[in-house]
Amino acid sequence: MPATPTSRRVRVRRAPQRAVYEREQIDAILDEAIVCHVGFVDDGQPYVIPMLHARVADVVYLHGSTASRMVRTLATGAPCSVTATLLDGIVLARSAFHHSANYRSVTVLGSATLVRDEDERMSALRAFTQQLVPGRWEHVRPPSRQEMKGTQVLALALDEVSAKVRSGPPVDDDEDLALDVWAGELPLALQAGEPRPDPQQDAITLPEHVRAWRATRR
Amino acid sequence: MPATPTSRRVRVRRAPQRAVYEREQIDAILDEAIVCHVGFVDDGQPYVIPMLHARVADVVYLHGSTASRMVRTLATGAPCSVTATLLDGIVLARSAFHHSANYRSVTVLGSATLVRDEDERMSALRAFTQQLVPGRWEHVRPPSRQEMKGTQVLALALDEVSAKVRSGPPVDDDEDLALDVWAGELPLALQAGEPRPDPQQDAITLPEHVRAWRATRR
Repeated sequence: MPATPTSRRVRVRRAPQRAVYEREQIDAILDEAIVCHVGFVDDGQPYVIPMLHARVADVVYLHGSTASRMVRTLATGAPCSVTATLLDGIVLARSAFHHSANYRSVTVLGSATLVRDEDERMSALRAFTQQLVPGRWEHVRPPSRQEMKGTQVLALALDEVSAKVRSGPPVDDDEDLALDVWAGELPLALQAGEPRPDPQQDAITLPEHVRAWRATRR
Repeated sequence: MPATPTSRRVRVRRAPQRAVYEREQIDAILDEAIVCHVGFVDDGQPYVIPMLHARVADVVYLHGSTASRMVRTLATGAPCSVTATLLDGIVLARSAFHHSANYRSVTVLGSATLVRDEDERMSALRAFTQQLVPGRWEHVRPPSRQEMKGTQVLALALDEVSAKVRSGPPVDDDEDLALDVWAGELPLALQAGEPRPDPQQDAITLPEHVRAWRATRR
């Protein structure tokens, strides 16, 4: 695994000690994140929209309606950016200036390609479902031909990718350490509440894959 | 409060029933979000980076080092996009196709301006600190002249702004309702764990503003 950036554009320049270039850590962040933010340019204006994503090996997949601006723009091969961020906590320092956040964030740069192969498209749809709740795919009705027709799948290779990670306590200036101010971390995590069955649901027991997923988010 | 988009560019086109144009709801999302994603273009490539932000009245503030690419790019008046997303849950449908997420997301488009007025700059730094933990500012050492010198503050007016919100149970096709598949919502929320005092901290009791903040995240 290279511990150096794969391109000049993804080299972390600010706070380089927070840079991560190892694919193992990058993949773990992409896989834990439920939402990513996709950046693209339309008529000179950058847009940033939240999207569900899924990683399979060296590719991040996105999907959307054929009619969406994001899909239409990315399908032309226009440059894009996909960023997935996990917020791990708030960092409270003694000085206002050193307040910060603990986070893990991955950015992928490049150009996506429209996936045309039907098998790869179906694999990607499986991956989106599994990214939400592992084990989900085998329980649900698979996409119909009509549904597949209205959906576009985009693939972005993990060629230009880097992560930035901050963790740990605040870093105050030495002369502030004696101040009478509580300093430390407030950990944050995305946690699951009580599952809410669809009101149209007949009484079906909460299945094991949903129960197991919830256990990882508590 | 206008219930119509303030510009063609921020009109929600996909799933327009999820559009929100009321400033009250938009402000609430921006204020609850701890992190936003800022999009900008450098040398034809869109970048999306996670940033802390703060809203004051009709402005979203960002800040960063004078040397950061984001600051340097936005300071030129280049078009940008600021998106804040709150993930409220995962939506499990009976069909793979209707899986979704519940979320609240705001996008602001426009050009930021570099704030030069020292009073406004200090007010913005106060707002960043307060955005992390309300009440924090009065407890910490305020920024020094030197710290202010190395920090740039950018202001983006909430002129072109819209939100998109999904909530509630899955929407399955009628013919799938009888399938023997558990369907419903898995609620998610960013929740606070046990505060971790800085190891360099002398024993200082957890102050009330931190305790109160934690109570809002449990």
